[in-house]
Amino acid sequence: MHSFDKFHELVSKTINENPFSNSPEELYEPMDYILNIGGKRIRPILTLLGTDLFGGEIKESLKPSLAIEFFHNFSLMHDDIMDNASLRRSKMTVHEKYGVNTAILSGDAMLVRAYQFLEDLEPVLFKRCTQLFSQTAIEVCEGQQFDVNYETRLNVTYEEYINMISLKTSVLLGAALKLGAIIAGAKEEEADKLYQYGLNLGIAYQLKDDYLDVFGSLEHLGKKHAGDIFENKKTILYISALEAANEEQKEELLYWYNSNTDNIDKIYAVEKLFRKLNVNKKLSMLIREFTNKAHKFLDEIDVPEERKVHLRELSEVLIDRQG
Amino acid sequence: MHSFDKFHELVSKTINENPFSNSPEELYEPMDYILNIGGKRIRPILTLLGTDLFGGEIKESLKPSLAIEFFHNFSLMHDDIMDNASLRRSKMTVHEKYGVNTAILSGDAMLVRAYQFLEDLEPVLFKRCTQLFSQTAIEVCEGQQFDVNYETRLNVTYEEYINMISLKTSVLLGAALKLGAIIAGAKEEEADKLYQYGLNLGIAYQLKDDYLDVFGSLEHLGKKHAGDIFENKKTILYISALEAANEEQKEELLYWYNSNTDNIDKIYAVEKLFRKLNVNKKLSMLIREFTNKAHKFLDEIDVPEERKVHLRELSEVLIDRQG
Repeated sequence: MHSFDKFHELVSKTINENPFSNSPEELYEPMDYILNIGGKRIRPILTLLGTDLFGGEIKESLKPSLAIEFFHNFSLMHDDIMDNASLRRSKMTVHEKYGVNTAILSGDAMLVRAYQFLEDLEPVLFKRCTQLFSQTAIEVCEGQQFDVNYETRLNVTYEEYINMISLKTSVLLGAALKLGAIIAGAKEEEADKLYQYGLNLGIAYQLKDDYLDVFGSLEHLGKKHAGDIFENKKTILYISALEAANEEQKEELLYWYNSNTDNIDKIYAVEKLFRKLNVNKKLSMLIREFTNKAHKFLDEIDVPEERKVHLRELSEVLIDRQG
Repeated sequence: MHSFDKFHELVSKTINENPFSNSPEELYEPMDYILNIGGKRIRPILTLLGTDLFGGEIKESLKPSLAIEFFHNFSLMHDDIMDNASLRRSKMTVHEKYGVNTAILSGDAMLVRAYQFLEDLEPVLFKRCTQLFSQTAIEVCEGQQFDVNYETRLNVTYEEYINMISLKTSVLLGAALKLGAIIAGAKEEEADKLYQYGLNLGIAYQLKDDYLDVFGSLEHLGKKHAGDIFENKKTILYISALEAANEEQKEELLYWYNSNTDNIDKIYAVEKLFRKLNVNKKLSMLIREFTNKAHKFLDEIDVPEERKVHLRELSEVLIDRQG
């Protein structure tokens, strides 16, 4: 993890070297706040890794990597309003601390600031990167909208769910990597393989999140065990269970997912049902499949194997985690 | 106004020729809705006028002009949430019709779509236009934040107010014109004169709005007479009055601006005070000053006088209106 620490430090340093305008402070302070509540900077680090993979100069990617980090934080700011979330990483969310109006407006400005971090690139690169950025941004909005829609729908299919998480979270990982590749001068075809690596790894990562929520070891989780079940979230676990269930089991599952109880019996019952239906094993296999698919794309990228070391480490960190 | 009608039609046609993706419809339908509740398309028309002024091809500016129109509508969508407005142009606002979450998310996507309308430009133009767009977008957010701040502040100065309305509304008019100029191949210096024309005309336009709210003829106004006074909005009228008032008058003004009455007596009293303090005359002069300043910039632009006809007409339409 040493190299990641170095990249992490570079990203933080770049954020500090590009301070905000300080007026009006009501607009800029929330950006500062959300950037400093302990995010892992995974996405901008991916941009640096993308540049590194193709032998580019890391320093060329530093400011562009902030476009990704600012976009990510903008989307957290607005998603937290929509999800009515009061805490993020154990800190108050922006709308909770500064009010909804400020969170909307500061988020808007943060999205625009994100675009501005690409402005040091020369015109041809600037255009390629900005187009990738816009396309990705639209997809993330679409993913968030599907997520909102699915909350109130009973029958979400497996394909719909994978498409939703791809848009909502994985395309940004793919785009972060591809951005770095483009800046390093990678050919479109090679950059796309890296995008596909990120996309599929991102899907595996999100599925692992769903898995760990219910089957993760408590000491690693750092958040409420089975929170998704308490909140009746239709994750891949629920969808797979519903597909595999007989009539009686289906009835039981729907009973629990229509109740708003805080009773721990709910968790026991649903977990038991999940295990009985082999949902945990099936999900483990699915995670493995997407990870393998990601690695196949990485294998195909035409650079010396030693350059791929960081990205192989990354997969381990993201997928083989226990919490 | 014939030529404006033609430009208006061109803009509407371009909007129709660039339909949205239809999935998820919850994200795209609100965009369609707000674009079709009767906006005057002033801003995209300015872009076409900017191109026309420098002898460029109007068709090159059509899609880029939508960047301006989409940005404007994105900002209306989010501002209406912040202002808690239930109506816009006598129609339901987006958050009133579709809910706050949809208005936030659809607005976000609309801002990104705005950027995408610049993507047909070749890289050098694309970069210049995108930078102008981002800079302007940030300024509009800053202006909106200042506006929010001033609502709860008692002592806003004349300079602060002019700066706030410049950012909130006028820079977009300047940028719309300059965008058209850049696409027509205008030199930076000439394009900047056009920007300054738009900026100063925009300030005059906003001041005229403040003026008409109180001193406009009722039949032309189309909205509640003196709505700004009822809402205790600290417009330029209030600021000028406060500056010119003696202690007794100041007390009276503050009394009314701290009351939330719907009583028509409030309007009579405040209007009387405004007239006594010559606020109406001073404001008329100020509007004239900014209009003249705008025209000086227009005069200095190095193109044949006959090309400026449309823009001279425009000033008349925007400033010499009665409602």
